[in-house]
Amino acid sequence: MEQRVSWKRVAELVLPVLSLCCCAAAVADIPKETYQALGVTKNDPPKKLFDALEKRYHDPAQGAGKGKYGHLWDPIPMSRYFDPHTFYEPPASVKEVAERKECVECHSDETPGWVRSWKKSAHANLDGIRKLPKGDPLYYRKEKLEQVENNLRSMGKLGETEQLAEVGCIDCHVDINTNKKADHTADLRLPDAAVCGTCHLEEFAERESERDTQIWPNDEWPRGRPSHALDYRANVETGIWAGMPQREIAEGCTGCHYNQNKCDGCHTRHEFSLVEARKPEACATCHRGIDHNNYENYMVSKHGAVYTSLGDTWNWQLPLKDAFTKGGQTAPTCASCHMEYKGKFSHNVVRKVRWANYPSVPGVAEGINGEWSKQRLEAWVETCTQCHSERLTRSYLELMDKATLAGLEKYKEAHEVVVKLYEDGLLPGQKTNRPAPPEPEKDAPVSFFQLFWTKGNNPTAIEFEAMEMGENDLVKLHVAAAHVNPGNWTYTEGWEPMNRAYAKIMQENTQIREMATVKQKLAQLDSSPVFGLIDGVQTDARQASLGGLGGVMLLAGSLGLLRSRRRRDSGRDAGDHR
Amino acid sequence: MEQRVSWKRVAELVLPVLSLCCCAAAVADIPKETYQALGVTKNDPPKKLFDALEKRYHDPAQGAGKGKYGHLWDPIPMSRYFDPHTFYEPPASVKEVAERKECVECHSDETPGWVRSWKKSAHANLDGIRKLPKGDPLYYRKEKLEQVENNLRSMGKLGETEQLAEVGCIDCHVDINTNKKADHTADLRLPDAAVCGTCHLEEFAERESERDTQIWPNDEWPRGRPSHALDYRANVETGIWAGMPQREIAEGCTGCHYNQNKCDGCHTRHEFSLVEARKPEACATCHRGIDHNNYENYMVSKHGAVYTSLGDTWNWQLPLKDAFTKGGQTAPTCASCHMEYKGKFSHNVVRKVRWANYPSVPGVAEGINGEWSKQRLEAWVETCTQCHSERLTRSYLELMDKATLAGLEKYKEAHEVVVKLYEDGLLPGQKTNRPAPPEPEKDAPVSFFQLFWTKGNNPTAIEFEAMEMGENDLVKLHVAAAHVNPGNWTYTEGWEPMNRAYAKIMQENTQIREMATVKQKLAQLDSSPVFGLIDGVQTDARQASLGGLGGVMLLAGSLGLLRSRRRRDSGRDAGDHR
Amino acid sequence: MEQRVSWKRVAELVLPVLSLCCCAAAVADIPKETYQALGVTKNDPPKKLFDALEKRYHDPAQGAGKGKYGHLWDPIPMSRYFDPHTFYEPPASVKEVAERKECVECHSDETPGWVRSWKKSAHANLDGIRKLPKGDPLYYRKEKLEQVENNLRSMGKLGETEQLAEVGCIDCHVDINTNKKADHTADLRLPDAAVCGTCHLEEFAERESERDTQIWPNDEWPRGRPSHALDYRANVETGIWAGMPQREIAEGCTGCHYNQNKCDGCHTRHEFSLVEARKPEACATCHRGIDHNNYENYMVSKHGAVYTSLGDTWNWQLPLKDAFTKGGQTAPTCASCHMEYKGKFSHNVVRKVRWANYPSVPGVAEGINGEWSKQRLEAWVETCTQCHSERLTRSYLELMDKATLAGLEKYKEAHEVVVKLYEDGLLPGQKTNRPAPPEPEKDAPVSFFQLFWTKGNNPTAIEFEAMEMGENDLVKLHVAAAHVNPGNWTYTEGWEPMNRAYAKIMQENTQIREMATVKQKLAQLDSSPVFGLIDGVQTDARQASLGGLGGVMLLAGSLGLLRSRRRRDSGRDAGDHR
Repeated sequence: MEQRVSWKRVAELVLPVLSLCCCAAAVADIPKETYQALGVTKNDPPKKLFDALEKRYHDPAQGAGKGKYGHLWDPIPMSRYFDPHTFYEPPASVKEVAERKECVECHSDETPGWVRSWKKSAHANLDGIRKLPKGDPLYYRKEKLEQVENNLRSMGKLGETEQLAEVGCIDCHVDINTNKKADHTADLRLPDAAVCGTCHLEEFAERESERDTQIWPNDEWPRGRPSHALDYRANVETGIWAGMPQREIAEGCTGCHYNQNKCDGCHTRHEFSLVEARKPEACATCHRGIDHNNYENYMVSKHGAVYTSLGDTWNWQLPLKDAFTKGGQTAPTCASCHMEYKGKFSHNVVRKVRWANYPSVPGVAEGINGEWSKQRLEAWVETCTQCHSERLTRSYLELMDKATLAGLEKYKEAHEVVVKLYEDGLLPGQKTNRPAPPEPEKDAPVSFFQLFWTKGNNPTAIEFEAMEMGENDLVKLHVAAAHVNPGNWTYTEGWEPMNRAYAKIMQENTQIREMATVKQKLAQLDSSPVFGLIDGVQTDARQASLGGLGGVMLLAGSLGLLRSRRRRDSGRDAGDHR
Repeated sequence: MEQRVSWKRVAELVLPVLSLCCCAAAVADIPKETYQALGVTKNDPPKKLFDALEKRYHDPAQGAGKGKYGHLWDPIPMSRYFDPHTFYEPPASVKEVAERKECVECHSDETPGWVRSWKKSAHANLDGIRKLPKGDPLYYRKEKLEQVENNLRSMGKLGETEQLAEVGCIDCHVDINTNKKADHTADLRLPDAAVCGTCHLEEFAERESERDTQIWPNDEWPRGRPSHALDYRANVETGIWAGMPQREIAEGCTGCHYNQNKCDGCHTRHEFSLVEARKPEACATCHRGIDHNNYENYMVSKHGAVYTSLGDTWNWQLPLKDAFTKGGQTAPTCASCHMEYKGKFSHNVVRKVRWANYPSVPGVAEGINGEWSKQRLEAWVETCTQCHSERLTRSYLELMDKATLAGLEKYKEAHEVVVKLYEDGLLPGQKTNRPAPPEPEKDAPVSFFQLFWTKGNNPTAIEFEAMEMGENDLVKLHVAAAHVNPGNWTYTEGWEPMNRAYAKIMQENTQIREMATVKQKLAQLDSSPVFGLIDGVQTDARQASLGGLGGVMLLAGSLGLLRSRRRRDSGRDAGDHR
Repeated sequence: MEQRVSWKRVAELVLPVLSLCCCAAAVADIPKETYQALGVTKNDPPKKLFDALEKRYHDPAQGAGKGKYGHLWDPIPMSRYFDPHTFYEPPASVKEVAERKECVECHSDETPGWVRSWKKSAHANLDGIRKLPKGDPLYYRKEKLEQVENNLRSMGKLGETEQLAEVGCIDCHVDINTNKKADHTADLRLPDAAVCGTCHLEEFAERESERDTQIWPNDEWPRGRPSHALDYRANVETGIWAGMPQREIAEGCTGCHYNQNKCDGCHTRHEFSLVEARKPEACATCHRGIDHNNYENYMVSKHGAVYTSLGDTWNWQLPLKDAFTKGGQTAPTCASCHMEYKGKFSHNVVRKVRWANYPSVPGVAEGINGEWSKQRLEAWVETCTQCHSERLTRSYLELMDKATLAGLEKYKEAHEVVVKLYEDGLLPGQKTNRPAPPEPEKDAPVSFFQLFWTKGNNPTAIEFEAMEMGENDLVKLHVAAAHVNPGNWTYTEGWEPMNRAYAKIMQENTQIREMATVKQKLAQLDSSPVFGLIDGVQTDARQASLGGLGGVMLLAGSLGLLRSRRRRDSGRDAGDHR
C-alpha cells in the first residue's frame, strides 16, 4: 500500500526535478560557446552534457594525458597523483575488500586526517543541508544538492525517488552511490575532474568552458590557453619540461599545472571547504612567485589590505554572488573579480583575460587595443564599476595598459641587444662551449628553456638576464599594475628591476664587444709581418690554439719560439721571466 | 510655545559645546610648533585654525600642486585621483542633478560597492554613535562626533542647536550638511584632506603639523620632510619623477605619494574603518618593498608574531590610547609606536624620526648623536619602556645605531670605488655611450635617477649596484634593525646583500681597470716605433677607430698594412688567415 | 588539633603526587638517550633529573657561554639579553628593594606592558586552572600545574601540602616561591632555560634531549646539532661570527641563535601564550629568509593555505596531541609535524631531521639512503600517513630527496669551476688584492665567512655567487620541496636561481680565462725578441708594474721607451696621439 502514490505525490517529487532539469543551465553560467563546441543544447538532459564533456576531457587529441612530447619522458611515482587518469593504478599492497561503511571504520585508524576532514565536509552532512530553511542564507546549498541529485538521476546513478544519503569515500574512490564491495587492488580510483563532475556537472562544464571561450583572435596563445582547463597540457607540451633530465624538478611545475586533471588545487581534500576555496589563499599556492605574483600584489594592494584587516567580519559561507550584498564583504578577493563575468560567477576564470600575465608573448601587446581585447576591457569596466566610477576605472585601466607597454618597450630594446650578440657570435663561449639543449628543444638565444636547463655557456648570464627581464620582471610590472600595487610596478618589482637588467645587459654588451675588439687586435698582431719578417714560421701549436681563444691568435706559440731562439742567442736563463 | 526654552535647557545644549571648544586642543595632540607657524592659539575657535591650515595646505608656495618641475610633465587621467585639488574636474558625461537622498538611491545600482561600504561606516550611523552610554568603551566616538559638530558650528556649517543627521555622499562630494541639488557636471568634488579636515579638524591639524615638527637641524632633509604631510611634494619635486617620459610608471610613485592630498591612503573609502586604519596592513601598501620594508620587518619580528597570532583577540574598536589598557593588546602595531609621542597619540607620525629610513642621506649619520637626534632617541626610550626595561631599550637602540653605521661604512667604501671609476673615465661606455638623463636631472655617477631611467651605458651596472646598495640594502639593514627582525639586518637583507654588492663592485673595479691597462698596452703597442720603424704610416682607418675602442688604438689598420706588405712579398693568398 | 590529620587525608594529598612522580616521564616524551647520557632513570625524582640537566646545561665544556672563540670577541650591551647566564648583571641604577606584591604595583607604572601581558598569562591565573573540571578540554593545564608543583616539591621549593599561589615577577626574576625582599641591584636575574626548567622540568628535559638524539652517524654535523639546544654554541663557535669586527651585525645572528639560552624565542614574554607558541608565526621570526625559508614555503603550500583560511575556526587552546582530534584542525602547522615523533609530541624538534636544511654539508647527501637517515624517513612516513596514503607519502618523500640531489649536483659542478679558478690563481685580484679574513678564519675559496666579511677582492663576486648558490638557493630548493611548495623548488626559488647562478659562474669563468689568455699574450709579446732585438733593455718601470696587472707585463714601460726614442728620431710631437 505504501507503493501506491497519488499523482499529487508524483508531482511533488518529479516537478522540482523537472524544473531543475529545465533550469540547470540557468543556475550555472555555462557559455554558449561550450554548448556549440559540444553539440549540446541547454535543454538536453544532464547526462548528454556530461557525456560530451567527459569524452572531450579524456581525449588525448584534445589535451588529455602525456601530450605530444610524451615519448620523451617517464612519469615518476608522484606523477600518478597529478594525472591520475593516465598514471594512477590501485595500490597492489592493500588487499582489503571493503564496503561503504568499512572505509571510515578502517581509515579512522589508518589515515585519521582524511576522515576528520571529510566529517567536516558537506559530503558528510547532506542531511543538515537538506534541512536548511528557505530563508537561510545557506539555502543555496540545498538547491545545489538537489541539482546534484538531478544530475545523478539523469545519469542513472540515483533512483528517481532516491536521495543521496552521504558522499563517502567509496562514492568518489570507486563509484558514486555504489553498494559494491570494493577491492582496493582493483577498484580504487583517484578522482579526476570528471569524477567530481559527475555530481558537480555545472561546475565541471563551467571550468571546461575555458577551452571554448579562450580563443585568441590571432592565435597569440594556443586554443583554450592559458587556462585551468588545459594547464596540464601547457605543462607537458612545454619542450623543456618534457626534455629536462631532472624529473623531480620538472614535477615542481606539475605541482601547480594539474588543475586540468583535478579539482583539489582549490578545493583541498577532504573537507572541500567552500570558505577556503573562496579566500585568496586558495589561489596563492600557484599564483605567486617569481613571475605570476598575483597573490602578493593583491595582498598589499588596498583591496588586500581591506581583506586582511576586515575579512574576518565577512560571511564566507555565502556564494560569491551574495558575498557583497549579504555577507558584508567590502573589498574584492581573487574570486570576486576573476570568477565574475558580466555580473555572473562561474568556474571559467579566463573570460576577461587580455594580457594573460605575459606581455611579451608575440601579438598580445599588438592586439591590446583590438576588438577582442576591447570587449574584454568592457567586461572589466563592468566589474570595477561595482565599486568605482567608470571614469576612474577607465583611467586606471589605461594606466595599466600604458605602464605595461612602457615596460615592454624597455625589454625589447635590451632583448635585441642580446640577440645581436648571438647573431654576431659574440656571446661568451658561444663558439667553444655551448651545448645543445635536450630534445625537443632547439638552441636559440634568450629562450625559455634556459631558465631550467644550463650546461657550459648555454645560456650565458646575459641571456638569462634578458630572459628573466621579459619572463619575470616585465610580468611583475604588469601584474602589479593590474592589481593596484603601486610600489611594485615602479619600484620593488617591475620597472626598477627592468632598468637594473637593462643596465647589466648594456654594460655586458659594451664589455663583450670591447673584448672582441681586443682579441681581434691581438689576432691581427699575431699575423703581422713584423713577426713574420723576423720569423716567418707558423707553428702547429699556434694553429691549434686558434679556437680556444675564440678567434684570437694564440701568440704564445710563435712568441715562445722567438723567445727560445733569443735565449739560445743571448744565453739568458729561462727562469728570468717567471 | 516650543520655541521658548529655559536657561537650563540652553545650558544643557551649549555648555558641552563650550567645554568642547575649550578642550578641543586638549583632545588632539597638536604641537605648539604648528600653532606658532600658523599664528593661531589653542584658544582660537576651530574656524580660525582651519582657515590657517587650509590656506597653507592649498598654497603652491608651500608645496601644493605640481611643484617646481611642473612645467616638465603633464598629468595623466589617473592623476586627478591623486591630486584632486589640482586635477579633478566634475565628470562631463554624468548629467544628473540630484539632492541628498537621491545619491544612495541611484548609486545603489550604479556603484553598489560604494553604498554598501558607506552603510557600514560611522558616517552612516551617527545615531548609533550618539546613543553610546558614558561607560561604553566606544564612548570616545560620541565625543568625537560632538567635536566634529562643534567644528562645523564654528565654521557656520551647522546650526547652533542642530545635529548632523548623517554624513552622506553629498556632504563630502559637494558640501557638508548642504541641502542643495547638486549638478554632477558642476558641483562634484573629490575630497582632499582639507575637505575631511572640515569636520575632522583635529586630525587634519595633527597631520599638517608634520610640516612644523620635522625640521632638521642642518637641513639634512627639506623642511617638513620626510612626512605624509608633504609626500606629494617630495614626489613631484624629484627630478626623475618629473622628467621621465613613462608617465604611467611615474604614477606608480604617486600611488603611495599622495597622502599629502588625501586621507584614504589609510582610511579606505567608503567605510573609513578605524579598525582597518589601526592595523599594520593599513601601512603595508606603501611601507614595504625594495627599500622601506617596514611592514615585512615588523611582521616577522616578535612584535608582529604576537599581532598575527593573538591579534584576533584584541579589541580593535578602541582608540590607540586604550588599546593596551582596555583592548587586551599585548604587542605594538605600527600605529602604537609611530603615532605615539611622549604618551600621546596623533596623526603626526614623524616626531620621533631620527634616521628617516635612509642612513646615507648626507648629515643624518653625522648627526645621529647630536642634540636633535638625542631628544628624539629619548622619546623612543619613553615608547619602548612601556614594555621593556630602560636598560634593554638603550642597549637595543645602541645596537640599531651601530649596526646601521657599520652598514653605512661598508656602503661608503664601495660607493667611493665607483665614483673613482667615473672620475677616471673608466666606466664601461662612459666616453662613448652615456646619454644625458632627461631634464631636470643632470648626469652624475651613482644617482637616484638611474633606478628609473636608463639609456645606453647610463647607468652602468656597477653604478646601479652601488645605488641599490645604498638606497635599498643599507636601508633594509637599518629598517630591519629598527623593527627587531634579527635575520634581516645580518642575513636575508642588509649586511649579506651589502657584502654581495661590495664583492661585485670590487671585482668589477678590478676587471675594468685590468681591461683599461690591457687597452692602454695595445694602444701603446700601436704607436710603437717597432712598427713605426718598419712602416711609419698612420692610416685613416686607424685614426677613425680610436673612439670605438674607448681609447685603444685600433691595431687592425697598421697591422693590416704590414700584413699586406708581407703578402706582397711572400705571394701568399689573403684567404689563408680568414 | 588542625595539625592532626587522618591517614586518609594524607593519602588524598600524597597519592596524586606519588602517582605523578611515577608518571612524570610518561607524560613527557623524554628520549631514553637523555636518561642514559645523564645517568638518570625514569624513576628518579624530578630533582635528580633537573640537577643533571642543569649541570650539563651550564657547563662551558658542553657548550655553555662564549665558546672556543670567546677570546676573540667582547659582548655588546645587548648580549646580556641573549646569554643572561654569562652576561647579565642586575641593574646598578635601580636601587629598590621590594617584595613580591610590590613588583606589580611599581611596574604597573614603570613598564605596564609587562604587567598587562603577565596578567593574561597562566602564571597569573593558577586558580582558574586549578578549578578546571575533569572533562574540560583544557584540563591538561591542571595536570601540568600539578606536575609543576610536584617538581618543585622534589626540589624543596614548595611544601608538601603547599600550592603555588601564583607565578609572579619575583618567582622567575629572583627565586621561585620566595618570600624574600629582593634587591634589584643584587638579586635580579634574567631567566635562562634552566630557570624555566625548574618548574617546567619535562619541557626542559625534552628540549635538552636534542643534544642526545641528534647524533649523526659520521659526524656530518657536530654532536647534538643542528638543534635549538645548542644553537648558541653553533653561533659563537662559527669563526666569522667571533671574528668579524662589526659586533652589532654579528648580534643579528644571535637574535635567533639564543634558544639554547632562553625559552622566550617561542614563548614570548610575559604572556607566554600557548596559542602563540603553537602557531606557525612563533617559528617564523627565525625560520624564514634567505636560506631557511621554512615559514614562507609552508605558508603558501596547501598546508599553509588551509591554516590561513580555516585556522581561525580551530581551537588553539588544546595541546598538540588533541588539536586534530578535538580541536578541529585539518592541516598541519610547523609544530604538528616537527614536534611529533612516532605519535608523541615534545620539545625535541630534531628527531626526524635527515637533510638538516643544508644539502651541501659533506656527508649528508651521501648518507641520505643510509640506515640512520632511513629510520628517520620511516618516522616521517608515520607522520605524513596521518593524513596521506603511505604510497603518496613515499612517492613524495622520494621526489623531495631526488629533487634535492639534482640541485646538489648542479651546485657541485659550478662550485668546482670556481675552486679551479682559485687553484689556477685566476680569481680577479687574487694575487694583488685579497686580504686575509679576520681570525679565526683562514682564507679559502667559496667560504661561509665571505657572506659576512668582505675586503678588497676577497671574496670575488663569482665566489659569492657560488657560496649563495649552495648556502641559499640549494637550501631553498630543498626546503620548498620539503614543505610542498611546488612553484618554489622549480621556479621562484631553488632550481631557476641555481641555473641563474650557474650561468653567471660559467660566463665569468669563460671571460676570466679569456682575459688571462689575453694578458698572457701581451706578457709574451712584451718579452718577445721582436722588441728585444730592437731594444734589449728591461726598464725598472716595466718590472715594477708586473704585479699590478696580475701577471701581465706592463708594456707601457718598454713601449714608451721605444716611442720616446722614435720621437727623438722623427721629431713628431707627443700630443699627436692624445
